[in-house]
Amino acid sequence: MPTYQAPVSDMRFLLNDFLEIGKYQNLPGFEEISPDLTDAILSEGAKIAEEVLFPLNQSGDEEGCHFEDGAVTTPKGFKEAYKTYTEGGWAGLTADPKYGGQGLPRVMGVAFAEMTTAANLSFGTYPGLARGVYEAIDAHGSDEQKDAYLPKLANGEWGGTMNLTEPHCGTDLGLLRTKAEPQDDGTYRITGTKIFISAGEHDLTENIVHLVLARITGAPAGVKGISMFIVPKFMITEHGGVGERNSAGCGSIEQKMGIKGSATCVMNYDGAIGYLIGQPNKGMRAMFTMMNDARLGVGIQGLGLSEIAYQNAAAYAKERTQGRSITGAKMPDQAADPIIVHPDVRRMLLTMRAFNEGARALAYWMALNIDLAEKHPDEAVRQDADDLVALMMPVVKAYLTDTGFESVNLGLQCFGGHGYIREHGMEQYVRDARITKLYEGTSGIQALDLVGRKLPRKMGRLLRQFFHPLDQFIQDSMSDPEMKEFVMPLAKSFARLQQATAWIAEQGLKNPDQAGAASMDYLKMFGLVALGYMWARMAKISGAKLANGGDDHAFHERKVALARFFMAKSLPETSSLLSKITAGADLLMALDADQF
Amino acid sequence: MPTYQAPVSDMRFLLNDFLEIGKYQNLPGFEEISPDLTDAILSEGAKIAEEVLFPLNQSGDEEGCHFEDGAVTTPKGFKEAYKTYTEGGWAGLTADPKYGGQGLPRVMGVAFAEMTTAANLSFGTYPGLARGVYEAIDAHGSDEQKDAYLPKLANGEWGGTMNLTEPHCGTDLGLLRTKAEPQDDGTYRITGTKIFISAGEHDLTENIVHLVLARITGAPAGVKGISMFIVPKFMITEHGGVGERNSAGCGSIEQKMGIKGSATCVMNYDGAIGYLIGQPNKGMRAMFTMMNDARLGVGIQGLGLSEIAYQNAAAYAKERTQGRSITGAKMPDQAADPIIVHPDVRRMLLTMRAFNEGARALAYWMALNIDLAEKHPDEAVRQDADDLVALMMPVVKAYLTDTGFESVNLGLQCFGGHGYIREHGMEQYVRDARITKLYEGTSGIQALDLVGRKLPRKMGRLLRQFFHPLDQFIQDSMSDPEMKEFVMPLAKSFARLQQATAWIAEQGLKNPDQAGAASMDYLKMFGLVALGYMWARMAKISGAKLANGGDDHAFHERKVALARFFMAKSLPETSSLLSKITAGADLLMALDADQF
Repeated sequence: MPTYQAPVSDMRFLLNDFLEIGKYQNLPGFEEISPDLTDAILSEGAKIAEEVLFPLNQSGDEEGCHFEDGAVTTPKGFKEAYKTYTEGGWAGLTADPKYGGQGLPRVMGVAFAEMTTAANLSFGTYPGLARGVYEAIDAHGSDEQKDAYLPKLANGEWGGTMNLTEPHCGTDLGLLRTKAEPQDDGTYRITGTKIFISAGEHDLTENIVHLVLARITGAPAGVKGISMFIVPKFMITEHGGVGERNSAGCGSIEQKMGIKGSATCVMNYDGAIGYLIGQPNKGMRAMFTMMNDARLGVGIQGLGLSEIAYQNAAAYAKERTQGRSITGAKMPDQAADPIIVHPDVRRMLLTMRAFNEGARALAYWMALNIDLAEKHPDEAVRQDADDLVALMMPVVKAYLTDTGFESVNLGLQCFGGHGYIREHGMEQYVRDARITKLYEGTSGIQALDLVGRKLPRKMGRLLRQFFHPLDQFIQDSMSDPEMKEFVMPLAKSFARLQQATAWIAEQGLKNPDQAGAASMDYLKMFGLVALGYMWARMAKISGAKLANGGDDHAFHERKVALARFFMAKSLPETSSLLSKITAGADLLMALDADQF
Repeated sequence: MPTYQAPVSDMRFLLNDFLEIGKYQNLPGFEEISPDLTDAILSEGAKIAEEVLFPLNQSGDEEGCHFEDGAVTTPKGFKEAYKTYTEGGWAGLTADPKYGGQGLPRVMGVAFAEMTTAANLSFGTYPGLARGVYEAIDAHGSDEQKDAYLPKLANGEWGGTMNLTEPHCGTDLGLLRTKAEPQDDGTYRITGTKIFISAGEHDLTENIVHLVLARITGAPAGVKGISMFIVPKFMITEHGGVGERNSAGCGSIEQKMGIKGSATCVMNYDGAIGYLIGQPNKGMRAMFTMMNDARLGVGIQGLGLSEIAYQNAAAYAKERTQGRSITGAKMPDQAADPIIVHPDVRRMLLTMRAFNEGARALAYWMALNIDLAEKHPDEAVRQDADDLVALMMPVVKAYLTDTGFESVNLGLQCFGGHGYIREHGMEQYVRDARITKLYEGTSGIQALDLVGRKLPRKMGRLLRQFFHPLDQFIQDSMSDPEMKEFVMPLAKSFARLQQATAWIAEQGLKNPDQAGAASMDYLKMFGLVALGYMWARMAKISGAKLANGGDDHAFHERKVALARFFMAKSLPETSSLLSKITAGADLLMALDADQF
């Protein structure tokens, strides 16, 4: 049977030593942040994840959701777990205290989200979607809307959903057909079908707040005619309670590869009453402002599943005895050695762990920057942070999920044939992880966003927010003999990234297909360099701690060993990626479509 | 709904133009081979795969196998399909005519196996295992055993299984505990539990011939005390019919990630009557002689699933309209362009197809060499072919399944979120393909076999069977200006492979962990170079055909375009693999096990 322990010591290291979060006490929500407080939150969060959510992960997958007469029943135990979750205040961890939230920094939300999704990704989708709706209404709603919905979303009494996709359109929302007819009372009647709506219907909350993209009668075609509406499942009464049923209902749920405890709904809006949120025809912009959070959230899912896969694979590799070390028996008194003696098993485990800890550092750095972009008193700092986040989010989303999926597969591989059997849990992680590369924009769409939108924006200014500190770090560390083994490979890969960037900028200007053809390889290279940067910074911190003696020797020794591993065994991929990037688009565009 | 069409035109190209199979009419089984005959077999095989097996693939996955009171019922339709399959003579396609087989070359068996596994991998496991048992008895059985079992296996009346794995041992068979007690009548009583036995029990055949590895009372410990036994489900009567039930039974079937129509059984042998096959204590050797065929067969499964995933992804990419080409609308009269206009969608499709056709060429070349090794009149040719096959089989097994799995995932990715939904079939291919990296020896075990056994064997002589013709080909083609674009990157990657080989030979001698640490990256590099070689050879043939005009212009034009793609977008990975290989083992071995 699988196990899970939230990686609290690594989280603590990132908060205190890597981000030095105590430095930001001038920001709202950071005032009372101290190692004691963050420790308490991490350990309470770990308890929920390990003891409440994780025990329902396999059974939830086995049972799935039930659909009958428009109603969805979640797997056994989800309802009770949700109650525990909301009673602990976890639904509003980062929500505004004004609406009953805890008001904590986003990085704490990210840490808790990792635990939740590692322990039970399916469960995590329900509060995850509600959090997204909270952010959207907070950013774009009227005061009246905020007062009506935010407290109920922050305390978890109500759920929420995002309704974008329709059967004929997902990526290309300009094609969407759902209609919004204005009524005399200022409301709208929403009519249309939405698909792939996570948490669209369930039995965890007394109400569900649907955010629906639709086109107001007479609005322009394409993305410029899309507006966003609040469509509650049950109408809100005068006193803020739950009233009559709205004509928004679930038509069916999908049979999927994984996340079977998460209800993926076809939603039918049949003249449902909706309330415009934000400006008419500005629905896409409202969506986009939520995208950074959502993409970071999905990236974190890739990481969370890789973490739990690692933990179980490492435990199995230490327990399972089979064969002998090729350098001679390590446990001659036993019939065989544990398989962790084999270099290739270690290669798999270290690949996973170096990814996990590097990805976690990157995600935390981004979470801090989202807060800086919103809350820092200095506008220049806000702008820089916003630029960095805009640049990095497609990388975080696609790299963490693509590599997370590979990593989960490495974990299964450590189990040999046993990994294919359901009871070990590994195959579920693979099936669950597979969705993360698809939803909230596929990896390919992230890559197009990176090369097509983020690189050219503001004449390339976004790029500087990543390149500049990285360059500075390399300059600063180059002369440190202890850092040479980390900085040299990082500098080499960074040079390749700069070369690839210049190639794309130049070639893409002449022919946009050049940028499109290079996009995925470029994003992967970007992700590798970003993790290389994280690892070099962590190696520096851990190296200093080791030099100073002190506690946690084993922790820092492992950090340095993982940094070394990442530099030598993961980062070199940038060399072949550069070749692929500069191979150009003609290779891809040569054949006519009917030749495929 | 998914579709499948056997890739007959590519198979025909490989048989006639690439292998020039007509040249081998001096070999038994090849006498009557002509383009007409092979065409007829391919098109009949395609009909079975497309019309009989493929329609049961999704329903079989949905329904799975049923277990009750020791009996396994296969999914609806399997029984009738099996009847059609055996009545058509497909069970004995490559079996000896002496025992009722068709006696055809192995390459025809491989072509048909690809169709079968692409159309329905679960179904394919039943005849596939029986074929393995046929080969084992043919190679190691007494004349009496051959006469008793081979005709029934060749005509498909009886099934077969291979019983190796036990709960505590898979890779390390030296640990196995199943006992064989000799009886006065020359038979043995077999007692023990075997797990992961594909096709261990089912309702397709009137009898099942189990091949069981067990230890005769008093035999040495470890692999040197293992013997192989025939244990029939039902005893054979005097007249060769089916008699009393033997005490060999299925205890349960596994709940798995995929291949749900294939019964994976726990088999209990409780004093079952068994017949020694081959010499006592030589069971491992008998197993190993079957390994080449089995590993080629599993490699082919990776290819087959990648082929069907490609076909469906390509069809979807041509149909699904979404967004616009980044170079301007390609179908301005429609609301959106088909997604095949996007370079990154093409990258995914071409990556898959370049793998498929390269892998198919490699597999066919190997199949021909297995026949040469067995049937060629010249002993030196037999030996060379045997050496080549021994060298390449771990590469074929692991590279085709690892890359096949990646490829199937690219296919799913082309569907976006729709790929995650069961009805499209793509997620089943991912789940089914996942087993191929595990069974018949995990990829890691194949890599260890390559560096630990195959490289050093006969002072490196095996290697020459691949390096020499490749080197010769490069020399011969270097001066051909038409071939330069293919030969240059191939030569560069081949140089890296030689460098990596020298590094492993030298370092591994000092410290075997160095070879182990490099093994997977080395195997991958080997696979890339092998496919690069296949592609260069195919490009040469197709280039010549294009130069001469003639038919199939589109076919050869695509071949050349795919060769170009492979050289520029897949082969460059050898550069980063070389860095990883030479990074050494210390990185992996530095941490104590408890640091994981």
